[in-house]
Amino acid sequence: MLLPAPLTGVVPPLCTPLTPNGDIDTASLTALVERLVSAGVHGVFALGSSGEAAYLDDRRRRTVLETVRQAAGGRVPVLAGVIDMTTARALDHARTASRLGVDALVATAPFYTRTHPVEIADHFRRLRDGVDLPLFGYDIPMAVHTKLTPELLLPLAQDGTLAGIKDSSGDDGALRRLLVEMRALGLDGTFTVLTGSELAVDGALLAGAHGVVPGLGNVDPDGYLRLYGHARAGRWREAAAEQDRLAALFALTEAGDPAAMGGSSSALGGFKAALKLLGVIACAATAAPQVPLDARAHATVRRILEEGGLLG
Amino acid sequence: MLLPAPLTGVVPPLCTPLTPNGDIDTASLTALVERLVSAGVHGVFALGSSGEAAYLDDRRRRTVLETVRQAAGGRVPVLAGVIDMTTARALDHARTASRLGVDALVATAPFYTRTHPVEIADHFRRLRDGVDLPLFGYDIPMAVHTKLTPELLLPLAQDGTLAGIKDSSGDDGALRRLLVEMRALGLDGTFTVLTGSELAVDGALLAGAHGVVPGLGNVDPDGYLRLYGHARAGRWREAAAEQDRLAALFALTEAGDPAAMGGSSSALGGFKAALKLLGVIACAATAAPQVPLDARAHATVRRILEEGGLLG
Amino acid sequence: MLLPAPLTGVVPPLCTPLTPNGDIDTASLTALVERLVSAGVHGVFALGSSGEAAYLDDRRRRTVLETVRQAAGGRVPVLAGVIDMTTARALDHARTASRLGVDALVATAPFYTRTHPVEIADHFRRLRDGVDLPLFGYDIPMAVHTKLTPELLLPLAQDGTLAGIKDSSGDDGALRRLLVEMRALGLDGTFTVLTGSELAVDGALLAGAHGVVPGLGNVDPDGYLRLYGHARAGRWREAAAEQDRLAALFALTEAGDPAAMGGSSSALGGFKAALKLLGVIACAATAAPQVPLDARAHATVRRILEEGGLLG
Amino acid sequence: MLLPAPLTGVVPPLCTPLTPNGDIDTASLTALVERLVSAGVHGVFALGSSGEAAYLDDRRRRTVLETVRQAAGGRVPVLAGVIDMTTARALDHARTASRLGVDALVATAPFYTRTHPVEIADHFRRLRDGVDLPLFGYDIPMAVHTKLTPELLLPLAQDGTLAGIKDSSGDDGALRRLLVEMRALGLDGTFTVLTGSELAVDGALLAGAHGVVPGLGNVDPDGYLRLYGHARAGRWREAAAEQDRLAALFALTEAGDPAAMGGSSSALGGFKAALKLLGVIACAATAAPQVPLDARAHATVRRILEEGGLLG
Repeated sequence: MLLPAPLTGVVPPLCTPLTPNGDIDTASLTALVERLVSAGVHGVFALGSSGEAAYLDDRRRRTVLETVRQAAGGRVPVLAGVIDMTTARALDHARTASRLGVDALVATAPFYTRTHPVEIADHFRRLRDGVDLPLFGYDIPMAVHTKLTPELLLPLAQDGTLAGIKDSSGDDGALRRLLVEMRALGLDGTFTVLTGSELAVDGALLAGAHGVVPGLGNVDPDGYLRLYGHARAGRWREAAAEQDRLAALFALTEAGDPAAMGGSSSALGGFKAALKLLGVIACAATAAPQVPLDARAHATVRRILEEGGLLG
Repeated sequence: MLLPAPLTGVVPPLCTPLTPNGDIDTASLTALVERLVSAGVHGVFALGSSGEAAYLDDRRRRTVLETVRQAAGGRVPVLAGVIDMTTARALDHARTASRLGVDALVATAPFYTRTHPVEIADHFRRLRDGVDLPLFGYDIPMAVHTKLTPELLLPLAQDGTLAGIKDSSGDDGALRRLLVEMRALGLDGTFTVLTGSELAVDGALLAGAHGVVPGLGNVDPDGYLRLYGHARAGRWREAAAEQDRLAALFALTEAGDPAAMGGSSSALGGFKAALKLLGVIACAATAAPQVPLDARAHATVRRILEEGGLLG
Repeated sequence: MLLPAPLTGVVPPLCTPLTPNGDIDTASLTALVERLVSAGVHGVFALGSSGEAAYLDDRRRRTVLETVRQAAGGRVPVLAGVIDMTTARALDHARTASRLGVDALVATAPFYTRTHPVEIADHFRRLRDGVDLPLFGYDIPMAVHTKLTPELLLPLAQDGTLAGIKDSSGDDGALRRLLVEMRALGLDGTFTVLTGSELAVDGALLAGAHGVVPGLGNVDPDGYLRLYGHARAGRWREAAAEQDRLAALFALTEAGDPAAMGGSSSALGGFKAALKLLGVIACAATAAPQVPLDARAHATVRRILEEGGLLG
Repeated sequence: MLLPAPLTGVVPPLCTPLTPNGDIDTASLTALVERLVSAGVHGVFALGSSGEAAYLDDRRRRTVLETVRQAAGGRVPVLAGVIDMTTARALDHARTASRLGVDALVATAPFYTRTHPVEIADHFRRLRDGVDLPLFGYDIPMAVHTKLTPELLLPLAQDGTLAGIKDSSGDDGALRRLLVEMRALGLDGTFTVLTGSELAVDGALLAGAHGVVPGLGNVDPDGYLRLYGHARAGRWREAAAEQDRLAALFALTEAGDPAAMGGSSSALGGFKAALKLLGVIACAATAAPQVPLDARAHATVRRILEEGGLLG
């Protein structure tokens, strides 16, 4: 399907349900996509950080894209992460994703290696030249240890290399400068800015972001859709109240014991534990070598869902 | 004067005008304070990062506080930074500031040394016990390389150690969690949250922050006061438009050549160059060893002020 | 071939020669391996950071291993990097490498994602369980942003998960603690410690490291072999003098313009430019999106080789 | 007294004994200096990181310098740290130290603020111009988050700004490049390079460093003096064996519970606990807000001292 320009609304980064032995649970993934599309999301983003892309081998990545593409059924655009260290490797993922029929690609700056801004720009240009699909930059310094600055992004927006950006940097000042300069350059109708800062969506939309890619949207798509709807209608107080509620719900990402597991494992485990408790997916397992949430953490997630009114 | 609880509104972190030979230019500092108070700011913050506190010896710091205290004349509260490496040194500054009659203190986490959260909490408790003035935490990881998390701050808010926080972390997710949990604990009437993210003030106020400490407020206090007024009145679109204008104006912090000087020098130099061009201060010099802005950068600042309508 | 335990000596991390259009130049790679083996190196390490593993797609990685395996011809052990984000992906590389007949595997801690030490240990255990080849840990915090501490490594040495470590952390204190504790645990005869700090090899060997993995060893294997020989014979002054000479030669890694390219590109480009000037490889190209060295940098590399007596 | 050029040998960074209520324990500090000078150290460094300089107010810093100066009695040179955020503040400490009769000053790069290399160089030049004493650069990125590179240091060595460097960066590659380039510039007779990497002293001396500034030298000066003596005499195996012994002893810096206190507190507490157990100082207290070692940690320190043969 044709990707809207700009892409607006709520575009959850899909969790990747696994079977107990670590395979893709395609039935659960299909159910998750169906739940989100039925709720009214404006797109889905497969194989992002929330989708454990870093943990999935190429075969599993393909299964994810095939499943999501089929489950979405053309009702919403499917964005596919092509997360890998550098250009040639990301290009391989991009070609596979294109062949599997996704609607847009999402790529980070190079990582593992140290790069120069000129090299990052060249990386995106080569990806765009290599595969004929809209390309989004994925700004996630926490993972790649490089920030996609407005100075780097705007020329790539102007020359059509990038269709948009998913900003998971948490750097609100840089986001504002990007939005202001983007509009000054007349790019507002073509370049998409999506925020991944799921606790500050009201502010990002107020600042002019086009949409949000919330990991927590796997668990509570309705909340983010209400938040987005309030913002579009100018009901900012209501948007903020909804964001506050979601921020409280976000505590489920911290259910894991920080002394015993990484913050990333706790967050991904929390999303999946919630999806299992909500009956959406069959198994809450995360990919190895992540430490699984223990029973106490599952109880915490349950309590948070109950307090948030998502579980009766 | 009695500090309001919570402290709300616009509280600029005062620049510190210097003479060409590096002394405090008390006349210019007085003029700056007078300009801000006349404009209607709700407080002033002396000896913060924007005030070049890190560059001023103890004698100059005292002169700054004496001058600001006298210039403010009890019309607005004066907050004083007590920035130093650890507790004993910060306490010395705190005692001096108290003696000079400031209304509240602002302290960072320890720096230079590596600390544990328990040690940071103890640091604030000892500061509060040592001097009988309201104490604000100053969250500035860029400078001290430690983040003041909600988990650290909330107990200090609850037991009265901290009267509030100045959040210059740029971490909008943590700010949201702090605000939501603060209200859940019933602390909204007593604990003050001020954002130092001067490009995302509309979002921070929408999220419930009480006010803003904008370095750019030295240059354009009216802009931040309008922004604050719009937000208080629920005119969020207007608040965002004002914030957009201020974000464009913020480009004056990047007038310096990044290959020839630090980003901090460029920002502080940009504020001072603007204040000189606006006729508020007599000399744009920054403290050694900062590289001064060159003529080209001054011209850039002038152009930005003209484009922003601040200079005719 | 059977890997010696411990593995001692000079084990260069092979550069990966490319054709002008970015394919593996197998003839040049064969020539490089032949040159090193003829010089007397004690092993070769393919697909490490110096081998641009991060830039090579899976097909090119396979070609590299096939070529190196064949060129080595069983004369020295071939270690193969299996660099990827997490366990499942690294396992895929490990299985391929095993099938292609390499003698040992080298894996980093997980990257892109944030991990906990427990997860890193589990990562190595799963890799070792998955493929029946000796496994080396690759400690390279600059790339993966995690340090493999002695606390993490020693249990993995004791239970046989790791056959050794390649330490590219540059953390000489941690290296010393590892060596001292390794010997205290009676592991000196089985666990291999190789340093990747190619400018401090004399000190590392004096401290008890078993060997070195020097990128510069592609360019000057004789120098590192002399250095190693001196050290083994207790001629420490001579070892230090040789290391000094190699440290001066290492300046060829900084021939690139730091304002125009990344440090990684400059270093890899410097190695390849030197190999081309020495007539070992046919083309000095590095993989995209690295900025290539310009003519001025090539001239600098030539001058350094001449001053170092490697080029007549 | 005249500082030798270069300064060679063992120059311990003095711990600062405190009374239980946090004042300087001048009697214990005198005893510590006497012990070290009697052992034969070649200088003492007061008010470094090991001396808790970051935790001492100006009055206590003065007391330390007066006490050390008097205790040293001209028998060995006294180096004084002038650790503060930027130039003007460090200059104040430098003037005080000069007035109190120390023999050399030791200053870090600016911290808290972000700086440019040009600003760091200017910082050192202004310090040297302001006080007529030999000036050492203190390279401690862990504390100041800036590295003093060979590129930055060598011009300052050539023009006489810096008399030497204390390298606590742990970056052995940069140290080697500094030493090699220093000698190539003919500076070996005038510019002093001291390593603070107390677990790799043998390698640093082999590489050409002139001496060592070991925190552990407070506890075991004889060990470092033996190590230094072996190295000077070319007995490298014996030097390495002594370094191995000291590396095992260094475990006393990790006696504290990492979940309950910072690594810095544990290290400083470990040194002081050892000095108290050895009967050198009267009280093992560290300055607030550091968490003190608990009884279990004290027992660990005792065991390590016993195993190391320092305690009967």
